[in-house]
Amino acid sequence: MKILVINAGSSSLKYQLIDMDTESVLAKGLCERIGIDGSNLVHKANGKQTKYVAAMPDHTVAIKMVIDALTDPEVGVVSSLDEIGAIGHRVVGSGEYFSAPTLITKDNLATLKMTFEFAPIHNPANYMGVTACMEAMPGKPNVVVFDTAFHSTMPDEAKLYAIDYQDYLDYKVRRYGAHGTSHKYVSAEAIKYLGKKESKIVTCHLGGGSSVSAVLNGKCVDTSMGFTPLAGVPMGTRSGDIDPSAAKFLAEKKGMTFEETINYLNKKCGVAGVSGVSSDFRDLQAAAEEGNYRAELALNIFAYNVRKYIGAYTVAMGGLDCIVFTAGIGENSSYTRAQICEGLECLGVEFDKEANEVRKDGVNEISKPGSKVKVLVIPTNEELMIARETLALV
Amino acid sequence: MKILVINAGSSSLKYQLIDMDTESVLAKGLCERIGIDGSNLVHKANGKQTKYVAAMPDHTVAIKMVIDALTDPEVGVVSSLDEIGAIGHRVVGSGEYFSAPTLITKDNLATLKMTFEFAPIHNPANYMGVTACMEAMPGKPNVVVFDTAFHSTMPDEAKLYAIDYQDYLDYKVRRYGAHGTSHKYVSAEAIKYLGKKESKIVTCHLGGGSSVSAVLNGKCVDTSMGFTPLAGVPMGTRSGDIDPSAAKFLAEKKGMTFEETINYLNKKCGVAGVSGVSSDFRDLQAAAEEGNYRAELALNIFAYNVRKYIGAYTVAMGGLDCIVFTAGIGENSSYTRAQICEGLECLGVEFDKEANEVRKDGVNEISKPGSKVKVLVIPTNEELMIARETLALV
Repeated sequence: MKILVINAGSSSLKYQLIDMDTESVLAKGLCERIGIDGSNLVHKANGKQTKYVAAMPDHTVAIKMVIDALTDPEVGVVSSLDEIGAIGHRVVGSGEYFSAPTLITKDNLATLKMTFEFAPIHNPANYMGVTACMEAMPGKPNVVVFDTAFHSTMPDEAKLYAIDYQDYLDYKVRRYGAHGTSHKYVSAEAIKYLGKKESKIVTCHLGGGSSVSAVLNGKCVDTSMGFTPLAGVPMGTRSGDIDPSAAKFLAEKKGMTFEETINYLNKKCGVAGVSGVSSDFRDLQAAAEEGNYRAELALNIFAYNVRKYIGAYTVAMGGLDCIVFTAGIGENSSYTRAQICEGLECLGVEFDKEANEVRKDGVNEISKPGSKVKVLVIPTNEELMIARETLALV
Repeated sequence: MKILVINAGSSSLKYQLIDMDTESVLAKGLCERIGIDGSNLVHKANGKQTKYVAAMPDHTVAIKMVIDALTDPEVGVVSSLDEIGAIGHRVVGSGEYFSAPTLITKDNLATLKMTFEFAPIHNPANYMGVTACMEAMPGKPNVVVFDTAFHSTMPDEAKLYAIDYQDYLDYKVRRYGAHGTSHKYVSAEAIKYLGKKESKIVTCHLGGGSSVSAVLNGKCVDTSMGFTPLAGVPMGTRSGDIDPSAAKFLAEKKGMTFEETINYLNKKCGVAGVSGVSSDFRDLQAAAEEGNYRAELALNIFAYNVRKYIGAYTVAMGGLDCIVFTAGIGENSSYTRAQICEGLECLGVEFDKEANEVRKDGVNEISKPGSKVKVLVIPTNEELMIARETLALV
């Protein structure tokens, strides 16, 4: 079966058409500036890139353009829509309304709308992607795959904050995590690689946003992001964990409202705020190597906090078999991986500095052959994971 | 030398007179309702308790009553003030103005006042204790011992939040921790007990307020409380760590201001908020044993979060030799100690359930004899630690 994977933003729409027999990407592309002047679609297939410039007043028009590109006699990859078996959609937040990938029907479309308050920036756009596909391809199954779904297996002591329990019941305020599709994908790949029936894995999705998860026997038992993606380890521009009273103190000093303070913590902090240089780890490493103290500090704070989560999750699972690095920084920064892994001997990690510097396709083992805990670099593939989840449901 | 230890609150004043030759308490007592109708002093010495009822309009009058009691021919323990060599004061927050116990002079008294914003409830009262003693006992050395001082050795990556570095410089917003005097005392006692030159210790001060510290070779390298005592593990009524965006969401739902939200997180959350039963762990244990789900949940959330800090700090120190439990819950709740320690085999802990149930004076070892990591219960003694710090300075 061929599955179309959609990741819709408020003014953008990314897609991949995946052949599930071979799990290979037949075509992919990006619609930009939907609803804005200058909208365009860049479509890639068969090693060729095509750019279409045309008005896309809404997501439905955008989807229709994607269908036209996919079925185009020249740059297309299918002869008709009939070849596409289903559509899988990325959705960011589920609240407690959904805990697994779900086939969307007329009945639960309203419920999907109720999740908006748990991801007010992303979910309305994701929803538009779903309704646009329903309109443009009536009758095709649409499956929504939530970023939070993989974390729904967290036990109560991990997912609940120590707040008034009635407030949890009334407002569903708890830890939801994020990047779940990525954590699920790389932990599943790691389990295949380890060839073990039981496994204790810490997955480190380190990118512009970063999160760390504890995956016990394939199920998530804890994750570093919280009610929103603000919490956990420091990120490009997000503070990660911080005493709310520190935020309050800053709000008073800087004359910020509560809302402005949260915005500040999301956009003006993280390694960019600490360093004053950049949120890009390549820039930070270059600056640190030139002796920039704040850039070095930013890298140190980041690595230190990831390390602490690895320790915490080892205890949460009662042991550790494997650490997985993925996403932009996790896959590409050998410097940060070394900062995180060196000195983890107390957990049974024997880090292989040389293997860490080698670039490889697929799974790259960067611990020494005899290491009790294996350290792996695994490129993430959220689109493929969404396609797999979609296939499993249709 | 005899040292008077003072812990002044806004309307109360606790004291102990300690003979430093034997480190024994000669007398102790409590002034209550200072500046309020019905003020009184309860003084204990030589196995006898005496209650004085008299107006105490301010802390200076209270201190004068304490001096009268200490030098009283009948219930007193010294013949004159000359026998008291120095006064040690507990002060809660230091900001970055002080990083060690300090002899107060006319010159640095103004600096002490500048710390108020870092502990607005406690420090003004602590300050009143100092000035009252200067007035009532002119010429006696007064030493201030900060709750935060022991944490001043934290490296930058542990003490700094990932916020705009300029905001740290301008407003000194960072992790300060609390309970430092207790963490210092019990870690020093543990080091004596272990008889090792190098040591990696996690100290768990678990009481109405709770904090966990990483103590490497006698120096604090990380601690769970943050800019204020709100952060870290959940507590009696405090939430501990929470995504600030979750707080914001609750503020909107419940119509709370930023200030009210911080107040909510400090006073309506923690195990009391989760359980709806009590902030007292004995009540929670009793309720949990009767099948109260929320009481059990509160205990589980508490233990789980302490466990995660133990794991995180093991990594922070590159290993673990010893876990120390102290304060109300740490010293008295064998149930909670077992919840925390069982399943820590991955860190090298062999927990001794039977030893855990035994009550003992002094250091109680509750790990099995062969355990790689020793688990100790050590009663805290902040007053003695303040007296020791004071003695060291005068």
